[in-house]
Amino acid sequence: MTDTLSAEDLAKFAADIFIARGFSADHAAKIAEVLVWADLRGAPSHGVQRIPRYIEIIDDGEMNTRPAIRVEKELPAAVLIEADRAPGQVSMRLAAAEAARKARAAGIGLALVRRTTHTAALGYYTRLAALEGMAAIAGSASWSNMVYHGAREVGVASNPFSIAIPHGKGEPLVLDMATAVAALGKIVHAARSGKTIPEGWALDDAGNPTTDPKKATLPLALGGPKGSGLSLMIEAISSLITANAIIADTIEGKPGGKAHRQNAFLIAIDIAQFRDLPGFERDLTRMIAALKAQPRQAGFEEILMPGERGARELEKRRKAGIAIPPATWTELMKVADRFGVKAP
Amino acid sequence: MTDTLSAEDLAKFAADIFIARGFSADHAAKIAEVLVWADLRGAPSHGVQRIPRYIEIIDDGEMNTRPAIRVEKELPAAVLIEADRAPGQVSMRLAAAEAARKARAAGIGLALVRRTTHTAALGYYTRLAALEGMAAIAGSASWSNMVYHGAREVGVASNPFSIAIPHGKGEPLVLDMATAVAALGKIVHAARSGKTIPEGWALDDAGNPTTDPKKATLPLALGGPKGSGLSLMIEAISSLITANAIIADTIEGKPGGKAHRQNAFLIAIDIAQFRDLPGFERDLTRMIAALKAQPRQAGFEEILMPGERGARELEKRRKAGIAIPPATWTELMKVADRFGVKAP
Repeated sequence: MTDTLSAEDLAKFAADIFIARGFSADHAAKIAEVLVWADLRGAPSHGVQRIPRYIEIIDDGEMNTRPAIRVEKELPAAVLIEADRAPGQVSMRLAAAEAARKARAAGIGLALVRRTTHTAALGYYTRLAALEGMAAIAGSASWSNMVYHGAREVGVASNPFSIAIPHGKGEPLVLDMATAVAALGKIVHAARSGKTIPEGWALDDAGNPTTDPKKATLPLALGGPKGSGLSLMIEAISSLITANAIIADTIEGKPGGKAHRQNAFLIAIDIAQFRDLPGFERDLTRMIAALKAQPRQAGFEEILMPGERGARELEKRRKAGIAIPPATWTELMKVADRFGVKAP
Repeated sequence: MTDTLSAEDLAKFAADIFIARGFSADHAAKIAEVLVWADLRGAPSHGVQRIPRYIEIIDDGEMNTRPAIRVEKELPAAVLIEADRAPGQVSMRLAAAEAARKARAAGIGLALVRRTTHTAALGYYTRLAALEGMAAIAGSASWSNMVYHGAREVGVASNPFSIAIPHGKGEPLVLDMATAVAALGKIVHAARSGKTIPEGWALDDAGNPTTDPKKATLPLALGGPKGSGLSLMIEAISSLITANAIIADTIEGKPGGKAHRQNAFLIAIDIAQFRDLPGFERDLTRMIAALKAQPRQAGFEEILMPGERGARELEKRRKAGIAIPPATWTELMKVADRFGVKAP
């Protein structure tokens, strides 16, 4: 074993674990692909370090290794997918394909996804649709882990929101943002490393601002009412339209209210039906060039487009490999040992 | 004259001015309706105080009093509206109706709007769609007035983003947020009142943080890369798909690059085709109740839903009337005098 692995070896290792835990080879490969994509982009919080937690929620019956995913409702421009507790990497990939299929038929397409599990890096799926010439908009809804504006307990979730657009044959632009001020993983990471967090990220149990990540139990929403409201709307579209309310159950303390489950939506707009794609690309290239040529604030070496930093990290790590922190590796080895999977 | 007017009198006064300036009675009434709606909700920055500026952009040929608005492209679930420089109050109302019409036919509907002018309170139109049982998502794109993350000149725009959902026969929930930290009107207002602004709202010409609103020439995006990216994506969907790029023209200093023009999109999702509306309402009511019952942070008397404060202000002002600040009234009277319109 080594602490730096190629993306291929890491993906094979991850897929082997999922196959050993009962997934089909196809589903296992899809889950591994999206996790490793996040590691490649320098976002380990959504990478293979999640595997032990995935195994837990499978053991708990919250994630289904043999989901009967089906399109439960089909309309001229929309589908409702019942995911049957499938991994998000499987259901959201289907959602991107279905939304794009509908958009090709109708100009715009919607996939609603009910009862999936961890959707992981949401930008992976909007990017997939963008690679097919779509502008894609997605959100995914989870259980309460962030305070609604003015509250002193977690109420809404740090629901991610993503928009991606194609850029010719190049890498799509991918915005992928949490509705929290800071990704919750960053608070956990600061606590582990003994660092403080900036004021404004979170409150303590008493509802007071804190810079101590160990006391930071109440993560704050981006821009107060804005991030809170956006999170609430993502829950409304993803969870209430699909009849699988999450945060009301969590807050009310219903049995199973804190069980792991997610819902999501993905909208695709087929650009070529409104305008020639080369013209769109030309205008986008012009906008990017204009923004990148602007004078910069002190401390900025470059103006970056949405998703550009991650795309560059990916190129680097495709060549240099992915460094796995020892703590993560230890956890992964425990899982591998349990299933008799050989480490790379 | 009085400094407090009923909504009806104010709307009639505004409409009379627009009729005198050359609009049809129908268009004049629609513009007045949306402006007064903002005043009723306590958002005067989007209210009748805009009228003198509207007259200016009509005089400049940027807003068209006799627009030939047309659906230029029609797909099974989408339309592209060429607005011919119509007031946003006219084109966006049509967009909401068309998106809802398409959604009823296909599950989801999209209206793209090219070459409109000031869309004013974006939440007005998503709310209209919500009143028809739709979940609605909209954005509108304008010229550069906000810094892109890391830049030291304005590049992107404080493009608003809105999501609305129906709540039974009650008032819809309406999120309507700028992609800037603070609405730009607030900085102008602080400058006029001799107040300081909080750090983090804007930079000065040199790119340094400032609390002096008179030096605050570079408004900042909400959450840095998040608000910048969201604004850029709204430009991409609204302006690049409709082949009417705005911010590249502004930054490049093209002739007409700073002329007033906007583009927009509005998406409607017909909830009843996925789920019974009473069930949706029940779950939404339950979520609202759960959030409102949470313990509150110090200084919060109540937990408010998106748009709730504005809806309450509207109820109050429908009864008590709308107070017009003397400075605004003076400006309005100048316009009224020019066209021989009688003040209420």
